[in-house]
Amino acid sequence: MKFLKTLSVAGGLAALPTLALAQDAAPGFDEIGPYIMTTLLFLVGGFLVFWMAAGFAMLEAGLVRSKNVTMQLTKNMALFSIAAVMYWLVGFNLMYPGDFNGYFALNFVPTVLEPVGLSAADAALDYASVASDFFFQLMFVAATASIVSGALAERIKLWPFLIFVIVLTGFMYPITGSWQWGGGWLSELGFSDFAGSTVVHSVGGWAALAGAIVLGPRIGKYKDGRTVPMPGSNLALATLGTFILWLGWFGFNGGSQLAAGTVGDITDVGRIFANTNMAAASGSLAALILTQIMYKKVDLTMVLNGALAGLVSITAEPLAPSLFGSLLIGGVGGVIVVFTVPMLDKFKIDDVVGAIPVHLIAGIWGTIAVAFSGSATIGAQITGILAYGIFTFVVSLVVWFILKAVMGIRVSEEAEIQGLDTAELGMEAYPDFTKG
Amino acid sequence: MKFLKTLSVAGGLAALPTLALAQDAAPGFDEIGPYIMTTLLFLVGGFLVFWMAAGFAMLEAGLVRSKNVTMQLTKNMALFSIAAVMYWLVGFNLMYPGDFNGYFALNFVPTVLEPVGLSAADAALDYASVASDFFFQLMFVAATASIVSGALAERIKLWPFLIFVIVLTGFMYPITGSWQWGGGWLSELGFSDFAGSTVVHSVGGWAALAGAIVLGPRIGKYKDGRTVPMPGSNLALATLGTFILWLGWFGFNGGSQLAAGTVGDITDVGRIFANTNMAAASGSLAALILTQIMYKKVDLTMVLNGALAGLVSITAEPLAPSLFGSLLIGGVGGVIVVFTVPMLDKFKIDDVVGAIPVHLIAGIWGTIAVAFSGSATIGAQITGILAYGIFTFVVSLVVWFILKAVMGIRVSEEAEIQGLDTAELGMEAYPDFTKG
Amino acid sequence: MKFLKTLSVAGGLAALPTLALAQDAAPGFDEIGPYIMTTLLFLVGGFLVFWMAAGFAMLEAGLVRSKNVTMQLTKNMALFSIAAVMYWLVGFNLMYPGDFNGYFALNFVPTVLEPVGLSAADAALDYASVASDFFFQLMFVAATASIVSGALAERIKLWPFLIFVIVLTGFMYPITGSWQWGGGWLSELGFSDFAGSTVVHSVGGWAALAGAIVLGPRIGKYKDGRTVPMPGSNLALATLGTFILWLGWFGFNGGSQLAAGTVGDITDVGRIFANTNMAAASGSLAALILTQIMYKKVDLTMVLNGALAGLVSITAEPLAPSLFGSLLIGGVGGVIVVFTVPMLDKFKIDDVVGAIPVHLIAGIWGTIAVAFSGSATIGAQITGILAYGIFTFVVSLVVWFILKAVMGIRVSEEAEIQGLDTAELGMEAYPDFTKG
Repeated sequence: MKFLKTLSVAGGLAALPTLALAQDAAPGFDEIGPYIMTTLLFLVGGFLVFWMAAGFAMLEAGLVRSKNVTMQLTKNMALFSIAAVMYWLVGFNLMYPGDFNGYFALNFVPTVLEPVGLSAADAALDYASVASDFFFQLMFVAATASIVSGALAERIKLWPFLIFVIVLTGFMYPITGSWQWGGGWLSELGFSDFAGSTVVHSVGGWAALAGAIVLGPRIGKYKDGRTVPMPGSNLALATLGTFILWLGWFGFNGGSQLAAGTVGDITDVGRIFANTNMAAASGSLAALILTQIMYKKVDLTMVLNGALAGLVSITAEPLAPSLFGSLLIGGVGGVIVVFTVPMLDKFKIDDVVGAIPVHLIAGIWGTIAVAFSGSATIGAQITGILAYGIFTFVVSLVVWFILKAVMGIRVSEEAEIQGLDTAELGMEAYPDFTKG
Repeated sequence: MKFLKTLSVAGGLAALPTLALAQDAAPGFDEIGPYIMTTLLFLVGGFLVFWMAAGFAMLEAGLVRSKNVTMQLTKNMALFSIAAVMYWLVGFNLMYPGDFNGYFALNFVPTVLEPVGLSAADAALDYASVASDFFFQLMFVAATASIVSGALAERIKLWPFLIFVIVLTGFMYPITGSWQWGGGWLSELGFSDFAGSTVVHSVGGWAALAGAIVLGPRIGKYKDGRTVPMPGSNLALATLGTFILWLGWFGFNGGSQLAAGTVGDITDVGRIFANTNMAAASGSLAALILTQIMYKKVDLTMVLNGALAGLVSITAEPLAPSLFGSLLIGGVGGVIVVFTVPMLDKFKIDDVVGAIPVHLIAGIWGTIAVAFSGSATIGAQITGILAYGIFTFVVSLVVWFILKAVMGIRVSEEAEIQGLDTAELGMEAYPDFTKG
Repeated sequence: MKFLKTLSVAGGLAALPTLALAQDAAPGFDEIGPYIMTTLLFLVGGFLVFWMAAGFAMLEAGLVRSKNVTMQLTKNMALFSIAAVMYWLVGFNLMYPGDFNGYFALNFVPTVLEPVGLSAADAALDYASVASDFFFQLMFVAATASIVSGALAERIKLWPFLIFVIVLTGFMYPITGSWQWGGGWLSELGFSDFAGSTVVHSVGGWAALAGAIVLGPRIGKYKDGRTVPMPGSNLALATLGTFILWLGWFGFNGGSQLAAGTVGDITDVGRIFANTNMAAASGSLAALILTQIMYKKVDLTMVLNGALAGLVSITAEPLAPSLFGSLLIGGVGGVIVVFTVPMLDKFKIDDVVGAIPVHLIAGIWGTIAVAFSGSATIGAQITGILAYGIFTFVVSLVVWFILKAVMGIRVSEEAEIQGLDTAELGMEAYPDFTKG
């Protein structure tokens, strides 16, 4: 920000002829317009998906008990930061290696951006700037890590969790991501996952499921065959988090059009926005109506997770369906949440915020639903779901077991009962409020 | 998100010639640029107005007592979702029926978006994509419903409220909306309401006023001729909600320029942003200074509502005024709030969050103020205000009375005293904090 | 928002020929595209920086004790509103006077925007709309004032603080701003500060430091040579505020490219986004690791401030560095915070939220670091740092002393102990929660 008004006012007359000359030589908007618009799409989409990091943080902080809020906030700040560093250090180039064997590329190179002041001649005019692409992609890997953090809340130690995040964001997510979005074997096979119901959400869900199994449930959660409710400490924050995620999802799905510089592309982005919104609304309403019918009382946490499940469900194909199709796809997502949250409890899998129903089960549903819109065969979709599931679940299990063996992943019983905030961090989130 | 880097790097050379050929045939940016920019305006404006749903939720959750917070959050999630479905099902085509009698169109058709990958030849190049337009418009109807939810908080039952929302968002708002923005009789008459001081905000306010009258005040609110303060439980949330609404309003007013692809249009959008910000700041300061003078103490809730009233006031004409004009228009909005909040209490109309002063009274003021900038005659403005007022107030009264007769709209006395959260939903918003 | 669908559907055929004719005469996108894109950059960047006002409000509300939250929220609403009015009234034209002596321009003229419906012939096609520029710049001055509010929390009276804000936003910031961004003597000298590590952040920090010295520490903060911790009341809000600021910073730094309509410019904006994100992540991780090592416990408030310090550090030059360079610059910012927060306490300078370490010290560091990337000489950078520091610190001291002498700047001892919310405003932020 320098010289601005000076340049435009005082320097305007002198500058104009030069500019005109430069423009004669420079390519016009018919050539550079699409590049500019797509780069802008990535930047706007990217900051919206960044905002989802805040959404996960608020959702999780609202759904844990007040004695564990500081820890949950710390994990969310840390996991995003780690994802940002790891994806630069190795992730981005592992995920998009260019020409490769389709399974794994030995491409351990940190990301390098274009030089400052790139000329049009040196730019990929049929796509967008590398920096904007990197910025956008980076936010997706962070979302994957956020999913894990919610499921394992209230009992996992900070550092083993962060080490898992390093492995997940630097290696696991990028490698499996390359199978599909890097042009690997699954994309060759015809698997279709527009914005990541499987590539992002199920992967997070599988990693969370493995962790929840290895970690075990919170003390007192399952007692004498009953599931003991452990209500979240701040439903206003949880609702805020859901609204933030909903907002961010317009960038998540809309940006995944990967182009915005033609009539067809920008119209498609609009279509994606409308469908994404419909699926969220429908998932929310499905949970609202269903909890009223089943429990005679609406359950706000189900409504929130219903909206999120609607969003996850539409993510595998937010473009092809009609608005009515999106309503159906999202609505099924909401139904899934209401039925699978208690189901997990039956198996004594303790998922604090409902991340596994929302991201894993609804993610599988959304990926299968792609076949209904004809964008892929059911066989390809199931192959993809299995490939991502088996790889991520098995590798996650191994990593969690190693962490457990080497350093332990769970806080002590006393620390868990006292709360992680004072026991592990020495800092309460709400020191003035908490009951004595 | 598929093949991205592969396509741009490895496939780039092969793809380029085809692209070049396609571009020879395809229309250039002089033809498609305005369509792309206006579509983008709707998408960005739309997600900003979406964000206002979170703003209303936080504002209202902050201004109700802690025992009613979960209910208020549930209502806000549900009303947005219902608005999204109803506006798709009937609202959008009722509001924009094309050629019609100017009062009401029997146009009960769900919204259909353009096909995927629309060609430039099939696009309305002088406007924007239908999907983006639908997405943007949808957010406005949701805002209308949010206004009602705040005023009636802490005593209305969930389901009758949601049924009212169905009627409001599917029928009432779209029908009256068609009078002006659908090209109906009021637009023929010369009524002017740029972004909806009347069409959106007063309509919400009238529906809220009718509801507040039928519903009656909260137990204990008016006692022995005194108004008993019932302070909101979380002013940090209320302030956050106000900031969110302020942010979203840039999309609300700026997007209502409905065009961004010429120098004149994008410059106007900038003008609208600056004016909108000024009116909010001025409304906030007016309430700050006035409460200091009148009560010797600044009242934060008045400052928040003053900012919102400034925003509502400028919404009928955010383009034509100068910055100084915007300061005056917004400042009067702030003054209105400070004087009309206690006035409503005199009439024992219990508006929990101040929605009627902010959206109805300041909305009327803003609509009248349009005449000062010469964008419309005072006669046309008053005709419009009356038409929207009479229709919305009368129909709302009827609907509220029917709901009252059929199913009752108010919770039991015990439930109200206990709080709607535990009584109706069985779920506290802040289980760890609330006083014993 | 008027006639939209009507116009595009019914009126489309009639309108098209006129449009086509108009377009023949009108300049094409090669000429107007850059103006449109840069104006859009300012509008999007501007609303993102606006959002930082909410970020500061939440961060500060979360880091003060619950008895002072309403006051902190009130200050943040008020300071933004005052900044908006003062920058219109005198600030913008003092800061960008056009041709001037380089030190101070007697240019006391309120800002006037372009007329409605500006024609391309009258527009500064090599830059952007004045309204969008004004809107964007205005948000920066508000950020400066926010910095002061955090440092002086929990003991300063409302009105003297707001009078200081009037002086800061109307005169001090614009005058020193003109030295660099208005094309004044420091820009002539080769001083470089891309988005305001010094011009915005250090200036806020110096004003805060002067205020903290004149005001003195909170009662009980320093006792028998010890620093007594006064933990913030709501770390969830503080974390939310940090995420908001991080998001807004993409607009802060990215918008400061001041151009988005060429391949080089939009690519640079992407580069700035990626670098800004990296610096924040790195600052956060540095504080995470360092507090673990030093105190054996991670300190969330340090992690939050570490991220913010990373952001401040990269602000002076977010374009030139590589991602690795940004990691180093931001990381040093995080380290600075961990070491300077206790250092300030040694000097008994009581900075409630850590604003001075984050904005002043990291701002100085970021400004010096510009010299490493070769964008400026170390001499020019130090000259600039000293010039901004001496002017702002001395003038602030004088203003604070005058305010102290004339009206007093500190609340009474009883009011401070009781809390500013009930003592000064008669309104609790969390009336249902606070401990008895």
